[in-house]
Amino acid sequence: MARLVMKFGGTSVADVERIKNVAAHVKREVDAGNQVAVVVSAMSGKTNELVGWVNEAARLHDAREYDTVVASGEQVTVGLLSIALQEMGVAARSWLGWQVPIRTNGAHSTARITEIDGTNLIERLEQGQVAVIAGFQGIGPDNRITTLGRGGSDTSAVAIAAAIKAERCDIYTDVDGVYTTDPRIVAKARRLDKISYEEMLEMASLGAKVLQTRSVELAMVHGVRLQVRSSFDAPDAPQGGGEGANYNGPGTLVCGEDEIVEQEVVSGIAYTKDEAKITVQKVQDQPGVAAKIFGPLADASINVDMIVQDVSEEDKRTDVTFTVPASDLARAEDVLRKAQADIGFEELKSDTDVVKLSIIGVGMRSHAGVAQKMFQTLADKGINIHVISTSEIKVSVLIDAEYTELALRALHSAYELDAA
Amino acid sequence: MARLVMKFGGTSVADVERIKNVAAHVKREVDAGNQVAVVVSAMSGKTNELVGWVNEAARLHDAREYDTVVASGEQVTVGLLSIALQEMGVAARSWLGWQVPIRTNGAHSTARITEIDGTNLIERLEQGQVAVIAGFQGIGPDNRITTLGRGGSDTSAVAIAAAIKAERCDIYTDVDGVYTTDPRIVAKARRLDKISYEEMLEMASLGAKVLQTRSVELAMVHGVRLQVRSSFDAPDAPQGGGEGANYNGPGTLVCGEDEIVEQEVVSGIAYTKDEAKITVQKVQDQPGVAAKIFGPLADASINVDMIVQDVSEEDKRTDVTFTVPASDLARAEDVLRKAQADIGFEELKSDTDVVKLSIIGVGMRSHAGVAQKMFQTLADKGINIHVISTSEIKVSVLIDAEYTELALRALHSAYELDAA
Repeated sequence: MARLVMKFGGTSVADVERIKNVAAHVKREVDAGNQVAVVVSAMSGKTNELVGWVNEAARLHDAREYDTVVASGEQVTVGLLSIALQEMGVAARSWLGWQVPIRTNGAHSTARITEIDGTNLIERLEQGQVAVIAGFQGIGPDNRITTLGRGGSDTSAVAIAAAIKAERCDIYTDVDGVYTTDPRIVAKARRLDKISYEEMLEMASLGAKVLQTRSVELAMVHGVRLQVRSSFDAPDAPQGGGEGANYNGPGTLVCGEDEIVEQEVVSGIAYTKDEAKITVQKVQDQPGVAAKIFGPLADASINVDMIVQDVSEEDKRTDVTFTVPASDLARAEDVLRKAQADIGFEELKSDTDVVKLSIIGVGMRSHAGVAQKMFQTLADKGINIHVISTSEIKVSVLIDAEYTELALRALHSAYELDAA
Repeated sequence: MARLVMKFGGTSVADVERIKNVAAHVKREVDAGNQVAVVVSAMSGKTNELVGWVNEAARLHDAREYDTVVASGEQVTVGLLSIALQEMGVAARSWLGWQVPIRTNGAHSTARITEIDGTNLIERLEQGQVAVIAGFQGIGPDNRITTLGRGGSDTSAVAIAAAIKAERCDIYTDVDGVYTTDPRIVAKARRLDKISYEEMLEMASLGAKVLQTRSVELAMVHGVRLQVRSSFDAPDAPQGGGEGANYNGPGTLVCGEDEIVEQEVVSGIAYTKDEAKITVQKVQDQPGVAAKIFGPLADASINVDMIVQDVSEEDKRTDVTFTVPASDLARAEDVLRKAQADIGFEELKSDTDVVKLSIIGVGMRSHAGVAQKMFQTLADKGINIHVISTSEIKVSVLIDAEYTELALRALHSAYELDAA
């Protein structure tokens, strides 16, 4: 017997038929003797419809009213799922954010959870009642409904798991786990059985859409074990090998490093096309110039990611290249041009036709030559690297976008990630 | 300056465009210096959609979950209306049932309001903020959302008006007031400027769809003055004659008799086709026979309305005729047949092709001959009366349905109700 949180997103509860399928998944866990809390999103499309109405009412709107309108979506699904469960003979009741209560700060529409009192939930779970909890919503200090921002239901699920001391939090999604890389590009991509929080965080922030970065952070802080699995499997499909309390299905377990006995040197390869490259040409190579470039960008809340500075030429001038989110490019160029006199550059160049490739693995900490293998593999294919950045468990390179598929496949083979 | 409640139904808030029109109505009252609380229903069609999903999830369902799902409809409209008001420069905030709080008993989906603490609302109203309140919903003793049953938003509005001591409760609807009779049948029907609670109650329970019976009862008990008016008038249309604090538009005021200086003898004529006639033939004319007939019907929760017993014949046998709601006819016949041996009747006859016509007016109390005029008028047209029932302010007759229009027009003229 275990205590579990099961989380289902919008496509899994898109209509009553699918809600009944979710109920069958829940029933399977209950029948196996588990205590279950379910966290659900709104029916897919509903949140967009509600947001559309809010924008139609006023372009600029009170975030408190926005939250009141948008949170109604999850209210519908918790009620319907509770009814579907009861119809299958499973005791269940719905819980809205304010009923649990899930307390948040007052940052309406981007609220952060501050406290969840799990007492009521635990009492009901121990009586054998399934708790069906509205994701994405909470209650602020002003006694009004708050929402956690898009994708916040993952965060709700992890926070609930921590509050009720669940043994695992299962995130049901439209993919069946975390892969070594994008299987749409690399046919030999493999599903990982396990991945560490740190690696998953890097994957998530580098473009893997499986989990919200915030929910992984929260899971890491509270030691909540996350299982990513597919909600489109038949609820009664035979459950495979693997480990984990009472649950042996496929999917990927996101957990602490200590649970992963055999660390791969590289666990996965991520890529993102959301970065743009800026080169500030011919600035004076002297102390303080970096501060003059990046100060105004920081003031404008533009995140600078990878940075490289060329070796100084004879005239003591150099080029500084860095990346910003593609959506901030126009703003970044504007900020820099306004500071041109102060920075003292000659020309500004930008390029959005780039991709950032990253190899990720906690094993890098104890292995030498991991980055070198990446550079050599790319060089062998004639792929030029514009910028490099590294962290303890990651090496990222910026290359021309047209080489994305070639580079991903070559690296996937080089690090021996290919499926047999 | 006055404190007002304005209530808008589902068709008035059917889409964002109409919600903006409602906001303009509210702004007009705010600009006139009034403190305004608005009570709204769900966008028309939304409640049906939600109820449809609930029924799809399970034919028999937990009323608490039904309430959770269905109450989401009003949550959407209060948020959108608040945003629309703010966009027009009117300070506003939304209030859900549990936020006010509107306390109800625990009869989920048919809950009755037990207490509204108006303190928070009054404080905000006095600061000049419009309170946009979700109709139809409250919070039960179990801290869960309750709903008041279909049409409950009228009741919410009246209860809020009583709680905040409003000078008037304006019910905006798709008709522009209460008429002497159905204007679709009688072209000369007149809109009434005023009608007493008692008369309105009779009208409502006799088929006039303008107001919910419960809301009129509540208004009578708490002395809340109700103004029935059209939401489809342009919000800035010139306001007509009449009386009432800061509001001089058309419509009908439902109020205490003391506010109505010149009482008409008959204020209105209502009709309903929802009754069916049953005749129990040849029962023994002896003490206890009525109890034998009506006891089993009462046990089956079937409301019996009009009753007439024929004069006994020589064989000491008589016929008893009465009406029941048409929707209960089959069940009533079934109940009676099962009790046939005990009652001792020979035959059972029924007829759904009947209509109940009622003349209503508090003036009847002090005028003689009012009923007689009704009987004479119908006799002059050759219309046979099957059953008669009377109360202090009403005379009802059951006639063949085919005479409905003829009878309505004749009576409307006879009581001098025709528009000039």
